[in-house]
Amino acid sequence: MAAQDFDSLATNTIRLLAADMVQKANSGHPGMPMGMAPAAHILWSKFMNFSPANPKWANRDRFVLSNGHGCALLYTMLHLCGYKLTMDDLKAFRQLHSKTPGHPESHMTEGIEVTTGPLGQGVANSVGLAVARNHLAAHFNKPGFPLLTNKTYVFLGDGCLQEGISAEAASLAGHLGLEGLVWIYDDNHITIDGDTAVSFTEDVPARFRAYGWHTLEVKNGDEDFKSIEAALAEANAVAGKPVLISLRTQIGYGSSKAGSADSHGSPLGPAVLAATKQRFGFDPEKSFFVPEEVGSFYSSLAAAGNAKEEKWNAMFQEYSAQYPELAAEFRRRFSGELPADWKSLLPQYNAQSPAKATRQLSHEVLNALAVGLPELMGGSADLTHSNLTNLKGAKDFQAASPEGRYIRFGVREHAMAAMGNGMAAYGALIPFTATFLNFVSYCFPSVRLAALSGHRQLFIMTHDSIGLGEDGPTHQPVETCAMLRATPNVLVLRPADGNEVSGSYAVALEHTHGPSVICLSRQALPSLAGSSAAGVAKGAYTVAELGDEKAPLDLTFVATGSEVSLALKAAEKLVAAGKKVRVVSMPSQELFDKQPVEYRRSVIPVGVPTISVEALGVFGWEKYSHYQLGLRSFGASGPAPAVYDYFGLTPEKVVASVASFLDTHQAQCTAMNVATTF
Amino acid sequence: MAAQDFDSLATNTIRLLAADMVQKANSGHPGMPMGMAPAAHILWSKFMNFSPANPKWANRDRFVLSNGHGCALLYTMLHLCGYKLTMDDLKAFRQLHSKTPGHPESHMTEGIEVTTGPLGQGVANSVGLAVARNHLAAHFNKPGFPLLTNKTYVFLGDGCLQEGISAEAASLAGHLGLEGLVWIYDDNHITIDGDTAVSFTEDVPARFRAYGWHTLEVKNGDEDFKSIEAALAEANAVAGKPVLISLRTQIGYGSSKAGSADSHGSPLGPAVLAATKQRFGFDPEKSFFVPEEVGSFYSSLAAAGNAKEEKWNAMFQEYSAQYPELAAEFRRRFSGELPADWKSLLPQYNAQSPAKATRQLSHEVLNALAVGLPELMGGSADLTHSNLTNLKGAKDFQAASPEGRYIRFGVREHAMAAMGNGMAAYGALIPFTATFLNFVSYCFPSVRLAALSGHRQLFIMTHDSIGLGEDGPTHQPVETCAMLRATPNVLVLRPADGNEVSGSYAVALEHTHGPSVICLSRQALPSLAGSSAAGVAKGAYTVAELGDEKAPLDLTFVATGSEVSLALKAAEKLVAAGKKVRVVSMPSQELFDKQPVEYRRSVIPVGVPTISVEALGVFGWEKYSHYQLGLRSFGASGPAPAVYDYFGLTPEKVVASVASFLDTHQAQCTAMNVATTF
Ligand SMILES: [Ca+2]
Ligand SMILES: [Ca+2]
Repeated sequence: MAAQDFDSLATNTIRLLAADMVQKANSGHPGMPMGMAPAAHILWSKFMNFSPANPKWANRDRFVLSNGHGCALLYTMLHLCGYKLTMDDLKAFRQLHSKTPGHPESHMTEGIEVTTGPLGQGVANSVGLAVARNHLAAHFNKPGFPLLTNKTYVFLGDGCLQEGISAEAASLAGHLGLEGLVWIYDDNHITIDGDTAVSFTEDVPARFRAYGWHTLEVKNGDEDFKSIEAALAEANAVAGKPVLISLRTQIGYGSSKAGSADSHGSPLGPAVLAATKQRFGFDPEKSFFVPEEVGSFYSSLAAAGNAKEEKWNAMFQEYSAQYPELAAEFRRRFSGELPADWKSLLPQYNAQSPAKATRQLSHEVLNALAVGLPELMGGSADLTHSNLTNLKGAKDFQAASPEGRYIRFGVREHAMAAMGNGMAAYGALIPFTATFLNFVSYCFPSVRLAALSGHRQLFIMTHDSIGLGEDGPTHQPVETCAMLRATPNVLVLRPADGNEVSGSYAVALEHTHGPSVICLSRQALPSLAGSSAAGVAKGAYTVAELGDEKAPLDLTFVATGSEVSLALKAAEKLVAAGKKVRVVSMPSQELFDKQPVEYRRSVIPVGVPTISVEALGVFGWEKYSHYQLGLRSFGASGPAPAVYDYFGLTPEKVVASVASFLDTHQAQCTAMNVATTF
Repeated sequence: MAAQDFDSLATNTIRLLAADMVQKANSGHPGMPMGMAPAAHILWSKFMNFSPANPKWANRDRFVLSNGHGCALLYTMLHLCGYKLTMDDLKAFRQLHSKTPGHPESHMTEGIEVTTGPLGQGVANSVGLAVARNHLAAHFNKPGFPLLTNKTYVFLGDGCLQEGISAEAASLAGHLGLEGLVWIYDDNHITIDGDTAVSFTEDVPARFRAYGWHTLEVKNGDEDFKSIEAALAEANAVAGKPVLISLRTQIGYGSSKAGSADSHGSPLGPAVLAATKQRFGFDPEKSFFVPEEVGSFYSSLAAAGNAKEEKWNAMFQEYSAQYPELAAEFRRRFSGELPADWKSLLPQYNAQSPAKATRQLSHEVLNALAVGLPELMGGSADLTHSNLTNLKGAKDFQAASPEGRYIRFGVREHAMAAMGNGMAAYGALIPFTATFLNFVSYCFPSVRLAALSGHRQLFIMTHDSIGLGEDGPTHQPVETCAMLRATPNVLVLRPADGNEVSGSYAVALEHTHGPSVICLSRQALPSLAGSSAAGVAKGAYTVAELGDEKAPLDLTFVATGSEVSLALKAAEKLVAAGKKVRVVSMPSQELFDKQPVEYRRSVIPVGVPTISVEALGVFGWEKYSHYQLGLRSFGASGPAPAVYDYFGLTPEKVVASVASFLDTHQAQCTAMNVATTF
């Protein structure tokens, strides 16, 4: 069979498998797979280095399907290429607990690099994947030992390019001159609302050239296999720049719905699908059919891929002999394990330690850890001297210094967090990223995907309350901790002092399959006598119990971060008035919820009036308290002490609030536990 | 005095006023005002049409300070131009409850068009402002009566351009060919982390030309007043395109910190400030000083501005005579009042109405309202046929059809929501914008600003739970309602059927100073016998009470949206087993919280076990229930019924959960109210 004929046959096989999957599921997106099948076939068969026997091979090429709704295409490719996806898995497309969910989920399916579907995320992940490769190559590659040379290939559509996150990521990728990053744009002139003429008429390649990218165009992405191959070959030869290939395709190619948004998001329907099979010379009666020659071609591709890894493994053996320490570090880092003695790096504090903002303490802890954990790599969205994330002595990661581990993300929070996900997905890195806590909202979709996919990313979020003062309500978080706590698998940490900052970093690093958000104060806080890193690990613990030892407890404060010391001062005043008061620090609701009920009840005892204090919104604190002190509105611009005072968060005003609450509600509190199912 | 000398004097006056404000506050950003003072002076003195006597004059030019941290500049201009901002107000910069907060807040200060500070928001607002002007001009302007001809001028910095939202907004503005929109880019080569060379090296004008913008450059924005004036004049002459002027400036111009990030975010310090005054030929001993000639120049500018409005008012008088109905509509719409009989437009439903998805019902209600409310203008982020926001018979708003009221936003959620804010800020429009509920996260920073600034924007958010099914956890909201409910001044509505959809639109339109998020199902829901629009207005109400009339209540379900009918089915099963059960629909926690405590206790009675049911995350429901049914993890891909079943949300499984809960916790529930301070 002539090459063109074989490529057509293989491509049409892929198109029809994807269309069959969608038809059987009676749900999904056939149009994109049918349009991008030629590019997928050429990319996998001529360029991609992969090892289906070991989907985690460190030097595999990374493939990202940023237009994740086209996942029937990706599952089809993984199946053909010998990954652990059977024909039955393809037939279970979009069924509960299948390996083939409605969008690619990296934690569900081997061979999926990153979870995509929310548009623009994949392209930004890919920039992180390329950063990771370039940085780690600079660290581990040695003359004669090109350990890490992989490419990062991305499929993306109009939707990805319309999303702002992709603009941020592309601008930074251009600035960084990221080599080995190839975006293949499915330029099909269609979005869900119809022709791109209704909303998207910019000159995409010109935009990318303005970012510093190399751009290529393929006029007929449906049938011109040679041009696709030539473009990919040229892309791979470009030095010092990322590459955009605009591939003109027809959505739903081959079907009677081709070129129309109708083929985007629903099955073709049995009649249209059968006619398409006939048009391709396939038996319209057969579904999920792979012609013999296509099957055997892809089997041989899988074998060749496995052989590539074996060759690489042999090289790594030699490398291990010549560079035993580096090789051990390589293995450790790609395993995700921390060095045995890493906890000894954590600073310890005591009541005599000077008052400092927790962002300053974070600077100390991060720097102490960075010395022993080279996998910590990251930076800030242009707030380095506010977030205090700079690593002493560390170089910037730039085009000319890929060995640098500090990233200047610019004011690009969304791309930053998504790049962090890509870096974590690459392996051997623990990304940290930073901005003001309030602006986690700019990157929240990526925080959510870190949580869903289980990426260990440390979000270092400073200026974590009205305590930021004069910048005012546009910058003061109110709902932010609630939104993060409401998100599954996010560890939200709001430490009160140095020991709790140390403890927060410890649990964040041990939260290996999810992100942590460390919320840090702008303002100085005292170092507490009763604080401990071990307490952080339990989520909440008693920092102090003040008053007559033998008397029954009158009141429990549950506070976080900067409000723990406030609660302590209020407690002292209440004790002076004859009360017995406990102050609980609760740096993490999530960790506390994981403790046995006996522990939880020992910290927040039944029948004792319990009051939460947190200088953000009170939403969600009903679970842990009878009464909530905090914000019920947006904040206000003013010096921090004035703002705290205005919102009733001074020791005097807290005492007054407590008194007034107990006047009316004491009986109710003593009759009940805080939360019924607590 | 020669023009150049006067312009220098005026500019230096502005520079020093701004620097004095920051110095007195001992907090703030002097660098940007000192760099952009020349552009501000030329813009206000030669181009801006404004009427300080009436900051809400409909045809005023709109000025947006997208780099809002430079607000000392804007406050200075408003003061000089005769707005109600006294020198004492300038001296109270960044103090609690002053009119001069740390970032511009449109609800705090007359003359501020939109709240800015979170970077990129202002530029996207400006696109909405320009859309509004072009649309309303097409509607109201008549030959000889150019009622709405205003320009929209924007100052923006590197940070705004790095944010993805600005890329979305600029791409769409270019596509729409928005005339009268002029962005003035403070190209000072500095961001907080230092030289833009560390993170931002793209060719900005080339990027904007790729979007379809006209671009201009001014090489010396510090002193070359003539070039600034020429560029603005050329910008105003450009037809059918938005314009970007890149203005090369020096941050902190005139001070010894000029050109350095050091001048960005903290006071110059007394010595540097005094030396700067000397360099400018000002008395270093004097602060907040306005030379006589500068003061009188700006006073005359204010008078001229007021005269412009008076002339316009005279024109409007004549317009009222010739087009009385249009004039009345103009006045009504700019007042924000709804037409007297608008509620009669709302569809009513009953138990015999067919089962429909609430997104379909929303389509009906929105279309019924749109007939009588021409101010409803908006669209979807490329999900028109999923969100069902298309207006029957409405044209698209496009360059060639500015009279169209349906906007094709493309996949640009963030710019969409920020444009909605700009449209609301312009006046005479009630914007509606739409995407999947889960993707409110992509535009949340703008939702938050709508809430802070009090913009009436209707967010129509469909596919509001795991009920979206096969698209899976990347698309299924979990934390979304919690994050919105935790945000002050957002009305979150999750209607259960047709009457509640009608009621939700009614309260959303009456929530005149804040946004509403209407959460709508993908799947069909039955029309309920007990539902009512009036119930929605109270936030929660009893939809049904089932079982022996005389028996005491055994259980209360509190459910929202699609789970109200689920709770009813579960209740029926419990009643069959001898229980008495109430089902409360709670479409809005916020509205319920505003009811008198007697009403709230009448709906959720004390001492009755109360169980919440919502097919999203359970976070925050402790306030209203003893036990929470919903999600404690991310969702899953599969057909909706299978997903509901997996998460225990079938009538049978709800009954089982209730039984098991009551087994262990009934005593506790009867001893307590749901929330102590309820
Ligand atoms: Ca497309
Ligand atoms: Ca700048």
